[in-house]
Amino acid sequence: MKHFANPDQKDWSSILRRPSLEAASLEPVVLNILKEVKEGGDDAVKRFSAMFDKCSIDLLEVSAIEIEEASSQVSEELKGAIQQAAKNISSFHKKQIPVGGPMETMPGIHCWRRSVAIEKVGLYIPGGTAPLFSTILMLAIPATLAGCREIILCSPPSTEGKLHPAILYAAKLAGVSKIFKVGGVQAIAAMSYGTSSIPQVFKIFGPGNQYVTCAKQLVQKDGVAIDLPAGPSELAVYADESAHPEFVAADLLSQAEHGIDSQVLLVAATRQLIEEVEKEIEKQLIQIPRKQIAKTVTDRSAAIQMNNVDKAMELLNFYAPEHLILSCDESEDLASKVVNAGSVFLGHYAPESAGDYASGTNHVLPTNGHARVLAGISVESFVKKISFQKLSRKGLSRIGQTVKLMAEAEGLHAHAQAVEVRLKGYVAAPEFVERKK
Amino acid sequence: MKHFANPDQKDWSSILRRPSLEAASLEPVVLNILKEVKEGGDDAVKRFSAMFDKCSIDLLEVSAIEIEEASSQVSEELKGAIQQAAKNISSFHKKQIPVGGPMETMPGIHCWRRSVAIEKVGLYIPGGTAPLFSTILMLAIPATLAGCREIILCSPPSTEGKLHPAILYAAKLAGVSKIFKVGGVQAIAAMSYGTSSIPQVFKIFGPGNQYVTCAKQLVQKDGVAIDLPAGPSELAVYADESAHPEFVAADLLSQAEHGIDSQVLLVAATRQLIEEVEKEIEKQLIQIPRKQIAKTVTDRSAAIQMNNVDKAMELLNFYAPEHLILSCDESEDLASKVVNAGSVFLGHYAPESAGDYASGTNHVLPTNGHARVLAGISVESFVKKISFQKLSRKGLSRIGQTVKLMAEAEGLHAHAQAVEVRLKGYVAAPEFVERKK
Repeated sequence: MKHFANPDQKDWSSILRRPSLEAASLEPVVLNILKEVKEGGDDAVKRFSAMFDKCSIDLLEVSAIEIEEASSQVSEELKGAIQQAAKNISSFHKKQIPVGGPMETMPGIHCWRRSVAIEKVGLYIPGGTAPLFSTILMLAIPATLAGCREIILCSPPSTEGKLHPAILYAAKLAGVSKIFKVGGVQAIAAMSYGTSSIPQVFKIFGPGNQYVTCAKQLVQKDGVAIDLPAGPSELAVYADESAHPEFVAADLLSQAEHGIDSQVLLVAATRQLIEEVEKEIEKQLIQIPRKQIAKTVTDRSAAIQMNNVDKAMELLNFYAPEHLILSCDESEDLASKVVNAGSVFLGHYAPESAGDYASGTNHVLPTNGHARVLAGISVESFVKKISFQKLSRKGLSRIGQTVKLMAEAEGLHAHAQAVEVRLKGYVAAPEFVERKK
Repeated sequence: MKHFANPDQKDWSSILRRPSLEAASLEPVVLNILKEVKEGGDDAVKRFSAMFDKCSIDLLEVSAIEIEEASSQVSEELKGAIQQAAKNISSFHKKQIPVGGPMETMPGIHCWRRSVAIEKVGLYIPGGTAPLFSTILMLAIPATLAGCREIILCSPPSTEGKLHPAILYAAKLAGVSKIFKVGGVQAIAAMSYGTSSIPQVFKIFGPGNQYVTCAKQLVQKDGVAIDLPAGPSELAVYADESAHPEFVAADLLSQAEHGIDSQVLLVAATRQLIEEVEKEIEKQLIQIPRKQIAKTVTDRSAAIQMNNVDKAMELLNFYAPEHLILSCDESEDLASKVVNAGSVFLGHYAPESAGDYASGTNHVLPTNGHARVLAGISVESFVKKISFQKLSRKGLSRIGQTVKLMAEAEGLHAHAQAVEVRLKGYVAAPEFVERKK
């Protein structure tokens, strides 16, 4: 790791710089696929699947039989694990279902908001060697709790035209309504514009490679919403003297194994601790299959010694990591100082992997500094809140004069008129002036 | 208005088509201003202010003395109106401050979310003849309730280098921390990148002309968040036999007077009602100063007769209007059928202008069909929710096996290792298997 000791605040920005994302060069290719699918529908989707996924698919939708077969191909052990994870994720996310009744801002003026599910949502799950079924739980469970009418899933098929059984099992369990064997830009295009077999959706969720990311960015111009801006996964660990170097090293490696672009940061109270963690990294690296990736990532990562804990928290808030582990006895005190982070893990027994899979929190989180502004996925990501108001004539009379004065001062006389026509001949109630809510 | 009677569903899309927004042609000009301000700071800002606002400004920040003077220049009547509106907006938005305590998804696994204010936000308020002080209340009040540390406001100065007194009064009242006499793209640039006098912010809110809109779009690439995608303001009215044509006409005109790009839609249960509303429009048009704009807008707008009320609601949900007025006796029944809308006004005494100014609801709302996915501005727009979790060793042991199985099935062995190092030698409690939350 690259060492820094109590760096000056003016250097934080360069020490913590993230790799810049450059998607512009992919745009022409991606735009072309989007256009072809928009115009050519299923035929174009199949053509691109043949080209990129090297598979020829007749029926894009996964059949009920295939889903049933998949279930028998997943070990009972893994099914049990997926069920337990789903149960915890469901418990945690259930608490996010918004409630909120009407209120009277003044007598006769009733205002409220109602949470309404986004009707149609699309989930994208990348293919490749490792099937990310955990992400299906993280997206489909809150979508189901929100009450989305249609929850579709697209994932690229193998060359045999199949999806991984664990993907199908998790999707079924979490409430996905339709599953399609389509990946890449053609999947994003199909969900954005609709084809004869794939329904158009209003919002697209889920990770993907740089082409998928670019496609998600571009379809926004056509009014399709997306979950979160993309960026490589990140973990920052704060460790003080109470930390176990072995645990800290394991956490850093679990982040580092994700991919060559993973971001890892260690902030430690002492130089000694940094050295101990590095020794542990060396030791543990040997034991993991993805050691090459993990080593490349940890080698280029920063380890910052910060003698002052408040300054350390300031630096971490400045960085705004996706994941933050506070490896210390006083983790709850420190937690109150966290202002910018996606998901925070407290104490010595909360590894990031607990939240990645099974504790119940969501693992789809803001990266690339967006934690300053955005939260991870929740039930709220699948609803919007509509405002309602109902006024009695008397209620309107209470704010009539206010509306008229403000509208006229803004030069909007027809706004005032909409009140006037309703209050013509109305005699204000005696409590009009002094009545207070 | 253009008449349609019970149009076929396949024609809805063309009847309800919105004007397409084309900002791409402005990009080179806007990008150049963004770049110059990013590099040149205050000097560049002042240069563009001189060029576009025809005013030479020495101190960009509005002084305390100017704010005090402004207060004396606003009539007591208007001040009272602004105060009453602020009070109602504050009452309504206070209910949006999120609460939510910790929960145990399993014994020893504590998970919770905490709402944390976005630290620095920027509000943009356009200039021109009509000072939009009402929008300041709609943005700064929820920002203040959310607890944003820095709430800055930019608005273009007059040629004399002044902001309208009502702008300054409303900004002060609503809790804005700093006010700057800067408009246009240079204001968006200054808030995005920071200058020596204007602080950098993390999220920018507020309306603007097409240049400002384009700038807000472009700065997102540099990681700055924005409130809502832009689009012209919209109103749809549903009216049945119980409606007062006079009220409906006034509502349509209040929307139509906004600007030449305003969108107005009337859906009525009978042909007769449409004709009566049109007669009323003719009558009322004479009385409003912005009659030319309002006439142009209503002339090109659609009036759709829908004999079936369920079909009418379907059409309105398909359109997903920013504002929706349900002018009928059974407005609350119909309200339960609204799936896509920004803000809904029920019954005969809730004109849009009530919500625009003083009932308490927010008037910064999703346009251009985004109401399918997005809500209007609320306290939630100024916070993000950070996840936290704390596990005891026993708690971790309860999900340890689940995490390991899932991580290994996803090919992520270091994820499993982060659990293993913590549970080495730990003997699972007897209730590990059957214990249920």
